[in-house]
Amino acid sequence: MSAATRGPVRVVGTGLLGASVGLALRAEGVDVVLDDPSRTALALARDVGAGRPATAEDDEPALVLVAAPPDVTAAVVAAELAAHPHAVVTDVASVKGHVLDELRASGADLTRYVGSHPMAGRERSGPSAAVPDLFLGRPWVIASSGESSDEAVLAVRALAVDLGAVPVVLDARRHDEAVALVSHVPQVMSSLVAARLEHADDVALGLAGQGLRDVTRIAASDPALWTSILAANAGAVRDVLVALRDDLDVVVDALGRADEASGPETVAPGVLTAIAGAVAHGNAGVARIPGKHGGAPRRYTVVTVLVPDAPGELARLLTEVGEAGINLEELVLEHAAGRPAGMAHISVLPGGAAHLEAELTARGWRLVS
Amino acid sequence: MSAATRGPVRVVGTGLLGASVGLALRAEGVDVVLDDPSRTALALARDVGAGRPATAEDDEPALVLVAAPPDVTAAVVAAELAAHPHAVVTDVASVKGHVLDELRASGADLTRYVGSHPMAGRERSGPSAAVPDLFLGRPWVIASSGESSDEAVLAVRALAVDLGAVPVVLDARRHDEAVALVSHVPQVMSSLVAARLEHADDVALGLAGQGLRDVTRIAASDPALWTSILAANAGAVRDVLVALRDDLDVVVDALGRADEASGPETVAPGVLTAIAGAVAHGNAGVARIPGKHGGAPRRYTVVTVLVPDAPGELARLLTEVGEAGINLEELVLEHAAGRPAGMAHISVLPGGAAHLEAELTARGWRLVS
Repeated sequence: MSAATRGPVRVVGTGLLGASVGLALRAEGVDVVLDDPSRTALALARDVGAGRPATAEDDEPALVLVAAPPDVTAAVVAAELAAHPHAVVTDVASVKGHVLDELRASGADLTRYVGSHPMAGRERSGPSAAVPDLFLGRPWVIASSGESSDEAVLAVRALAVDLGAVPVVLDARRHDEAVALVSHVPQVMSSLVAARLEHADDVALGLAGQGLRDVTRIAASDPALWTSILAANAGAVRDVLVALRDDLDVVVDALGRADEASGPETVAPGVLTAIAGAVAHGNAGVARIPGKHGGAPRRYTVVTVLVPDAPGELARLLTEVGEAGINLEELVLEHAAGRPAGMAHISVLPGGAAHLEAELTARGWRLVS
Repeated sequence: MSAATRGPVRVVGTGLLGASVGLALRAEGVDVVLDDPSRTALALARDVGAGRPATAEDDEPALVLVAAPPDVTAAVVAAELAAHPHAVVTDVASVKGHVLDELRASGADLTRYVGSHPMAGRERSGPSAAVPDLFLGRPWVIASSGESSDEAVLAVRALAVDLGAVPVVLDARRHDEAVALVSHVPQVMSSLVAARLEHADDVALGLAGQGLRDVTRIAASDPALWTSILAANAGAVRDVLVALRDDLDVVVDALGRADEASGPETVAPGVLTAIAGAVAHGNAGVARIPGKHGGAPRRYTVVTVLVPDAPGELARLLTEVGEAGINLEELVLEHAAGRPAGMAHISVLPGGAAHLEAELTARGWRLVS
């Protein structure tokens, strides 16, 4: 019961995000009241342990979290501000500027509203996919309305910290520009690359490798959700896409001129430089993404252990991890055929890694840094 | 010693691909002779067991595999055809049309030449990254020169099968159009999305999630290598990029009009449809990629087992996998905190999966399909 968040917390919208917030707060002993227009989603969220359904007799909430689809978020936030005149209200919509504009236009009490955008998700959606550690170590954007009271900002910051997230204070406009760049434009480009495959022949598709799969993974996203996100952040997304299109024009032009040449020696000056420049600027850009490129978001610390390729060695390792009192969160075993040892990548909560390393070293295991 | 490939096989260029071919053939007992202009790469390839360095006293090779950089491939192939007048020569360059054009222009003996493109790779390069199962289950394009003898095509097909690859017969032009679509265009677009991050502010980059990491992972690729690949396949890549740019124009235009509206109700007719259409066509395209989206290339079959969250259960599972006589190639354990059971994804060689499933079911484990 170390939570700084004061209940009851009212969660409106019990999809993946809302139900995960409920699960995490319930684990901290906070009273959570759930509401959702879908009775099925509400019952599912209750059944996974995310809280109790709202009733007419509930105490007034101290905090309301709106986790509704982006295009109805402002209306739901306005209704909650009106219905609960002493509550702080936050929302988790992935675009913040238009929610604020709509709230301002509606005359809502902006002193009690603070926008949120938790940068967390899963490939599955809905309350049945909810997990309490969804936000662990992930950024949680806190966007003041400009008129938000200090008390309201502190309440939302406490919520983010209670959920294990990392609060990032950003105004709505800068937030929207940032997500255009790191989320919305990658979504559009992934969709456009994937769309080129729609009428491709089967033989070509049979040659697909991991690169194509990575680039197009998020192209499987929901069109209705993304239409609403992209329309809500149209200006910022368009600005980045226009700059990207200028770069694309340079590459298309260079390829056209390369196609006219009969070999590298006869290519017009500047053509190969233009192509190499596009790839090199990509190198420079991807190098700026924090954390391990292509790796999973680091919710856990990974301890890597060399496991001799002999019967029972992996089982012994796992037994000894348990004896060290460490909860193994995830295990990936890399085992190249014909190699004398495999590598076990053991994911543990960040606090437990040093203890585990000491225990395993004492028992004679070789750790790989 | 079940290999159909007749040695000696001469491997020219002992990077990742050449050394991996050598390792796999050596494991089948085939005599492999190595050559590389870099003495370091040659010594490393020898040391990992990919074959023996070429000497003046070697027997004439039956088959030559050229694994040189794409822009010198044609010249090396021509030299090998001339130096070994009875050998079949293949290459592994990732663009096939321009190699064939250059060979034809040089007057080389095209009856003994057959192009190859093994669709396999790793993030690491060089002979030290070589593994004998690199080609296992991966497509291996076989591109006849049009004049290739049946005997030459059969020799290259036998090589692909000996390496565990799946032969795909495609002429050079269709091959180049296919890889433009599934490999070269995704590379360009990944680079262009990543390039937008080069001068982004740190706060924006701190919000990066898995989607951005996936889309930009291959943007870390080598500019020199990719300049040479893209220039060699300029026409086919440009055609796909021009079509993609037309789609991008539609999205940019729709976003511009959405930005002028004050909410979904006031957006001009057709604007939301255009945005939703781009995402929906992306859905349709990504659904056409064979295999599990976003998953690793399927070199192994995965058996998924429910593991109760009790001490010793995972160790018991691994012991029993061993008792079933199955070699565990890779293990991923998914373990959501607060859930009563985890899921162990056990990768095994394709032939062993059915036996393992039967054994585990008999021992009372619950399998997840």
